[in-house]
Amino acid sequence: MRVIDAGEFGLIAKLTGLIEKKSNTKSTAWSKLIIGAGDDTAAWKCRTGIELVTTDILVEDIHFDLSYTSWRDLGWKSIAINVSDIYAMGGQPQYALVSLSLPGSCFVSDVLLMYEGMIEACNKYGAALAGGNVSSSEKVTVNITMTGTAGKHLMMRSAAKSGDLIAISGYPGLSNAGLRLLKSDVKLSSYAMHLFRSAHFRPAPPVDYGPRLVKCGVKAAIDTSDGLLSDLGHVCEASKVSAAIYEQDLPVHPQLKKHFQNDYLDLVLSGGEDYQIVFTAGLEVMNKVMINIQPAPKIIGEIFEGRPGNIIILDARGKNIKPEHTGWNHYRGTEGNG
Amino acid sequence: MRVIDAGEFGLIAKLTGLIEKKSNTKSTAWSKLIIGAGDDTAAWKCRTGIELVTTDILVEDIHFDLSYTSWRDLGWKSIAINVSDIYAMGGQPQYALVSLSLPGSCFVSDVLLMYEGMIEACNKYGAALAGGNVSSSEKVTVNITMTGTAGKHLMMRSAAKSGDLIAISGYPGLSNAGLRLLKSDVKLSSYAMHLFRSAHFRPAPPVDYGPRLVKCGVKAAIDTSDGLLSDLGHVCEASKVSAAIYEQDLPVHPQLKKHFQNDYLDLVLSGGEDYQIVFTAGLEVMNKVMINIQPAPKIIGEIFEGRPGNIIILDARGKNIKPEHTGWNHYRGTEGNG
Repeated sequence: MRVIDAGEFGLIAKLTGLIEKKSNTKSTAWSKLIIGAGDDTAAWKCRTGIELVTTDILVEDIHFDLSYTSWRDLGWKSIAINVSDIYAMGGQPQYALVSLSLPGSCFVSDVLLMYEGMIEACNKYGAALAGGNVSSSEKVTVNITMTGTAGKHLMMRSAAKSGDLIAISGYPGLSNAGLRLLKSDVKLSSYAMHLFRSAHFRPAPPVDYGPRLVKCGVKAAIDTSDGLLSDLGHVCEASKVSAAIYEQDLPVHPQLKKHFQNDYLDLVLSGGEDYQIVFTAGLEVMNKVMINIQPAPKIIGEIFEGRPGNIIILDARGKNIKPEHTGWNHYRGTEGNG
Repeated sequence: MRVIDAGEFGLIAKLTGLIEKKSNTKSTAWSKLIIGAGDDTAAWKCRTGIELVTTDILVEDIHFDLSYTSWRDLGWKSIAINVSDIYAMGGQPQYALVSLSLPGSCFVSDVLLMYEGMIEACNKYGAALAGGNVSSSEKVTVNITMTGTAGKHLMMRSAAKSGDLIAISGYPGLSNAGLRLLKSDVKLSSYAMHLFRSAHFRPAPPVDYGPRLVKCGVKAAIDTSDGLLSDLGHVCEASKVSAAIYEQDLPVHPQLKKHFQNDYLDLVLSGGEDYQIVFTAGLEVMNKVMINIQPAPKIIGEIFEGRPGNIIILDARGKNIKPEHTGWNHYRGTEGNG
């Protein structure tokens, strides 16, 4: 079987199984591990709380295209997406390491611009760029490792419970709208262009969002990297529950509705790379969140007992509508609705 | 200026300068940082001691060639080289994260074999494979992040002192000899073939070597990834000292001398990817090391006050001999003697 046939998630399941079977899980490192293979971020106990590490790779012509991505934005995004992973667990980002591969023909000034973008993002999120390494390659490849710290509690994909409300920060779909605009000749107002482009090139998880959610008592979360439905689907699978989303409660940015009249719903549900947070919590905790956290998230649905991973989308009349795509899966591109 | 003109170390110096200039170094993360950009491994204080993170990337056709590298060996090596980085600082490896990019056409069975190699290495060195991510790319790219822990003290490149003795573990040059054999049609005895090939494909830092050196009081070390002269040169530059190496004290494996009669010295001095440890220490500490640590390292020279980074190699008659190459620099390949 080839990787393209197994798909990203099929491959990860096989790898996770192998790790559990063959590893010497009696070691000290294993005994402290809270979250291991199968998740984006690893987490383990330490005397002062919990430590986190996540790693993410951006490969030229797969994840970004230097013909329309600026080096500075590439640097920003490489850090922001890892901050997003740490926030999704409720952690505070701490150190970033850069593993950079690039052709010798790259300009040093471009690489410096990329690092300026990285430093800007690190400064915004309170992280320190603490090293890494450089090597040669045919394509520019930026791998960021980010460490984080958390208190006693983490947010996890597997903690959603029947009866929880589902909420999301920000406006999903803007990033993917920005990407579509880049690939088309459509020209919009400069405000709209800036909105969509910056959502795509400069994703900005709200500062301290993860730790603030944990403080309110939120236990289940994920960041929206693959798209709302796909990411919420991961939560529902890990938590062995179903979800209902109310179409009329989805946060649809007015500019998105205006410029993407035919497919704004598809963008909101399945557009990836927003790097906002989707989380679930019971009524009491959700009330606390709504009072204490700015920008306030939007409640979009609820969790119920049902087929693990299943998500229904209900319109104003309670009719189940099915979106065209559900999100991003490497090796398969966008997938049909499961 | 292009990256190829600046060279790996020139580029790193520029990036390090930018990080120091533009970062908000008043943040909590910065205040705890002990070793930041410019080194392979980042280190920072925590309440229980010191934490370490290192990251290293292996890119197909740059760092490895799948026409003669087995997937299992690739997995092993990807872990071992990061263990080596953690040991070089005196740390104990803890968690490994894999950021994997590969074409959809790869066989799942090959990827599983690679993970078997990773798990074998993790089991040997007491680390836990704790996650990562998978994405698509044209070339196989394996980026490993490894965390580690240390007590109160680290070994650092910058801690060598005039009067220190220089010692090295293992037999340098075997890995590069293995690589040369792969690229030639020469056939040796099966013992010799195995010796050189396994040095190249299965580098094996001696278990717990780093922490054991620290326990003896060693303060200055580096692992031999670029080649003895190049790596010792990094120590001498960072410590602002010179080094003298005694040719007759170098550990030359008998099989290396036998099969590479004309260039064994070049291999010992400049062959990279051995992933052993070079360290320096005063007489008292070195005695402690020699008594307590098996396999015992070999004393090969001493540190003296002189031009930072300069290394002389003295033959039995005290004559300075210059080697052909000094080590590996991405974007420049092997360099002439500086």
